Amino acid sequence: MQNNIRVGIVGYGNLARGAELALARTPDMDLVAIFSRRDGVTSESGTPVHSVAELQDFRDKIDILILCGGSANDLMTQAADFGRYFHVIDSFDNHAEIEAHFQTMQRVASQANKVAFISYGWDPGLFSLLRLVNTAALPQGKNYTFWGRGISQGHSNALRRLPGVADAKQYTVPKEQYLEQLRNGSAADISAQESHLRQCYVVLEDGADPAQVSESIRNLPDYFQGYEVEIHFLSQEELERDHSGMPHGGFVIRSGETAPGERALIEYRLQLDSNPNFTAGVIVAYARAAMRMAAEGKSGCFTIFDVPPAYLLPQTPEDIRHLL
Amino acid sequence: MQNNIRVGIVGYGNLARGAELALARTPDMDLVAIFSRRDGVTSESGTPVHSVAELQDFRDKIDILILCGGSANDLMTQAADFGRYFHVIDSFDNHAEIEAHFQTMQRVASQANKVAFISYGWDPGLFSLLRLVNTAALPQGKNYTFWGRGISQGHSNALRRLPGVADAKQYTVPKEQYLEQLRNGSAADISAQESHLRQCYVVLEDGADPAQVSESIRNLPDYFQGYEVEIHFLSQEELERDHSGMPHGGFVIRSGETAPGERALIEYRLQLDSNPNFTAGVIVAYARAAMRMAAEGKSGCFTIFDVPPAYLLPQTPEDIRHLL
Repeated sequence: MQNNIRVGIVGYGNLARGAELALARTPDMDLVAIFSRRDGVTSESGTPVHSVAELQDFRDKIDILILCGGSANDLMTQAADFGRYFHVIDSFDNHAEIEAHFQTMQRVASQANKVAFISYGWDPGLFSLLRLVNTAALPQGKNYTFWGRGISQGHSNALRRLPGVADAKQYTVPKEQYLEQLRNGSAADISAQESHLRQCYVVLEDGADPAQVSESIRNLPDYFQGYEVEIHFLSQEELERDHSGMPHGGFVIRSGETAPGERALIEYRLQLDSNPNFTAGVIVAYARAAMRMAAEGKSGCFTIFDVPPAYLLPQTPEDIRHLL
Repeated sequence: MQNNIRVGIVGYGNLARGAELALARTPDMDLVAIFSRRDGVTSESGTPVHSVAELQDFRDKIDILILCGGSANDLMTQAADFGRYFHVIDSFDNHAEIEAHFQTMQRVASQANKVAFISYGWDPGLFSLLRLVNTAALPQGKNYTFWGRGISQGHSNALRRLPGVADAKQYTVPKEQYLEQLRNGSAADISAQESHLRQCYVVLEDGADPAQVSESIRNLPDYFQGYEVEIHFLSQEELERDHSGMPHGGFVIRSGETAPGERALIEYRLQLDSNPNFTAGVIVAYARAAMRMAAEGKSGCFTIFDVPPAYLLPQTPEDIRHLL
């Protein structure tokens, strides 16, 4: 009987709570401790919560850390710091910075004789895996990614920073008409701007002018400018009642040809009631794979592209082959 | 600059022609020769065609053989024979016999210091990969596989063997109502019999009684009994005009929960104008991966579950990471 994998969680936001939930249902893994930068945090599962400053004391008690901080400020630093002492896995999702993060973690983890798994979840993560496998299976073709319908944290935050906005949620919605065009093989080049609708649910501050707020939303560069935007004003009560979930999902589509005029379509779709809880489930499965690769003597940085799929499940190779 | 992968194709049916087509568009692989058991075969690409008896002479000229025979009679024997001298990849799709085939090839390839890649294509193959990854990502859930709409060779052959049938094609069609139920989370247990319709296009022999042929189709055990069956009689000309393609596809769906009452749905879909040409494309990509694993010093039998996805593409790891 193999020992259970001993896991630590760093951070205690939505993703960390998802990991806590997933680990509670994972018989071959034990959640040892949660590490937070805040004081007075108690965990839902009763798992001990420690300060991140105490991490060093757990070097012999924890095999792998699931890093649940944000990509903007936390993950690159935390991975580089803690990756010197632990195997680590993160959900780093700033696509433009992934290569820099990879290079750092390749150096850190190799020197420490640890594995660092970066950018796990669904995008990057499962969507990346599908983009790669689809590209290989159907070389003459084109990849399309659609996001939603789901809450975009970044766009919701951008709305909340605007003058006159008390609170807000933003749903990214893929346009069905473009999905249908792709499925029918009639779509040419579609930009992300064309193919997504942005639905804004906005609570105004007292006395704010709806017309002026609408104007400033529509003209916000990078976030809303150039997109079809829907703006709904509502009360704080309505926002909390109807829009407190964290649904998300999306589509990875490859459309191509196996011979001239002979079409092939590959479509992958996620529809998730809870984005953080699903993301956490993916990370927990890949944390298991990380320990398999570490047990093989591997070290360095590994993305989802480097992991043999069989390592994701705890069953024996023969049992897993029943899924063939 | 690395040398191109030198490929041989064994057999020259539809799948082999698909592999020939795919290799012609694959810059890092060269098709060296095709091996057939029939005399007088000429290839569409002008590739030399040899007798399978001559395979031994190619031990220094070919790295990997793509075995394109049938699962029923050819592949287990050919893989065991030729796997002693070459790396091999096949599309063995008799699910009940995969484990036996694996065990044989594990022994043969290990002894020969070769890699044997078995059961590549889309089912088994990409569908298997999705079943595994989905199971790992969403442990509390259930996998569903739907096939079609597409031509089933096995069912078409079964129709042709019936008295009174001159020629026939059979389409397997997934029932949209069950797909919708799954997507909505309202489906319970669905059997393959319930969830698929079998459309038969039948050319009668002169003087055959349509009612009697229909009766014998509907009562054919394993193939049609227990299924909803649609029977269309037509002329040989109509069959050839309207039903000579080899379309196929299907769905792999996992429906589950990330927490009690919190749903997640994963749907993967293929829609293929040409089943053999798409299957060949998958096999060619995994043949590249086979050579990577062989170059690492690996030997033995490997299924799609054992292959790091990055090995599927010819680009550098850094270029591949752009797909993250």
